[in-house]
Amino acid sequence: MERKKLSIVCFSGDFDKALAAFTLATGAAAVNWEVKMFFTFWGLNILKKKTGRSWIGSGILARVFNFLMGGKRTLPLSRLNFGGVSPVLMTGMMKKSNVATLDELIDAAKALNIDFVACEMAMHILGIKKDDLDDHVQSVAGVATFLETSKDGHILFI
Amino acid sequence: MERKKLSIVCFSGDFDKALAAFTLATGAAAVNWEVKMFFTFWGLNILKKKTGRSWIGSGILARVFNFLMGGKRTLPLSRLNFGGVSPVLMTGMMKKSNVATLDELIDAAKALNIDFVACEMAMHILGIKKDDLDDHVQSVAGVATFLETSKDGHILFI
Amino acid sequence: MERKKLSIVCFSGDFDKALAAFTLATGAAAVNWEVKMFFTFWGLNILKKKTGRSWIGSGILARVFNFLMGGKRTLPLSRLNFGGVSPVLMTGMMKKSNVATLDELIDAAKALNIDFVACEMAMHILGIKKDDLDDHVQSVAGVATFLETSKDGHILFI
Repeated sequence: MERKKLSIVCFSGDFDKALAAFTLATGAAAVNWEVKMFFTFWGLNILKKKTGRSWIGSGILARVFNFLMGGKRTLPLSRLNFGGVSPVLMTGMMKKSNVATLDELIDAAKALNIDFVACEMAMHILGIKKDDLDDHVQSVAGVATFLETSKDGHILFI
Repeated sequence: MERKKLSIVCFSGDFDKALAAFTLATGAAAVNWEVKMFFTFWGLNILKKKTGRSWIGSGILARVFNFLMGGKRTLPLSRLNFGGVSPVLMTGMMKKSNVATLDELIDAAKALNIDFVACEMAMHILGIKKDDLDDHVQSVAGVATFLETSKDGHILFI
Repeated sequence: MERKKLSIVCFSGDFDKALAAFTLATGAAAVNWEVKMFFTFWGLNILKKKTGRSWIGSGILARVFNFLMGGKRTLPLSRLNFGGVSPVLMTGMMKKSNVATLDELIDAAKALNIDFVACEMAMHILGIKKDDLDDHVQSVAGVATFLETSKDGHILFI
């Protein structure tokens, strides 16, 4: 039987959508699908080593954008964010419900050997270097390469 | 000829995206595709029996979140919501144009035997019980089960 | 070898998501995939001939909505829009990085013969006529037709 494949374009840097992306990714990997995540634009924020707001990037504008976009600790809820309070409360609710938090989902994704690919173009525009991103990022690629390696599976845009 | 399949992850609780999800779902079912809708996170708001704001859920936080998230009557437009006025105006425009409203699309989806599945994890975190949701919800399932039953068709994330 | 197909539902009228849609579309076309873009709701703003805010549509409400929704020059960033300043700054960053801007991506999509389809229902509700849209729009179709012509390929919702 052929192994099923799932490729997720992680475009969003919203807390709730990052949760959805990693829940789908780890769920698929848990039932033995081959999973690839392609991080672009706001989605790169999830993988920045500096998990708070930091002035990475080259050029004033890129640095300001990166600061404002923030990192894993500052991902906003797509609605009802209340200045960042909601993601903290929601993480508390997840712990209380014994559901994996975003950090735990990301760790699970790594443990399940899910492939993290970073978008070359978005990194170029925002002046983000591979060293600025989580060490689990195996490769930096363009969208055409991503599509070609994903063509035999499902592709989701989140 | 094999029957085509469409599975939609209804993550968004925005009025306009709910319209899009049900338009795609009923359009596909109308041309005889097998359609499944998986409601998670904000998307669960569309299916709550209490269509306004209500204090469902267990625990203070879950109750507050459910109240703020609201139900089918309080779904916001993703932009230009104007405090909930826009969805009302837009429903008026749809009636005037003889286009199915959200309520009519949901009824059509049920009549077309589209499968409604509710996300187990999201319900658990938000303290939502199956009884809180529309009776057309046949099952509560995890994401891995959803993916496995959707693997031979198209999957959209909305 | 069968030619791969990609169909993108362009629902969003956000500047960043429009960039993502056209980057994916042109990237796929560049490696010889057959690509179709289906523009609906906010996504129609990208194709309006009047690229700023204009009073198109019939009926007061439709005219007000179209004015507020705007055109290609007024697409907002999904976050951190700052009243429209960010898309301008970001276009500057893209030029500086020698990356194709949105205008250039749209031109490339046309040159690559990517099929632009406009959503019949959304046009009807918003009172938008085919003449109001870019001349590259070959057809106006419903969602069932779109799905039927896309059934053998990948489908993304953006």
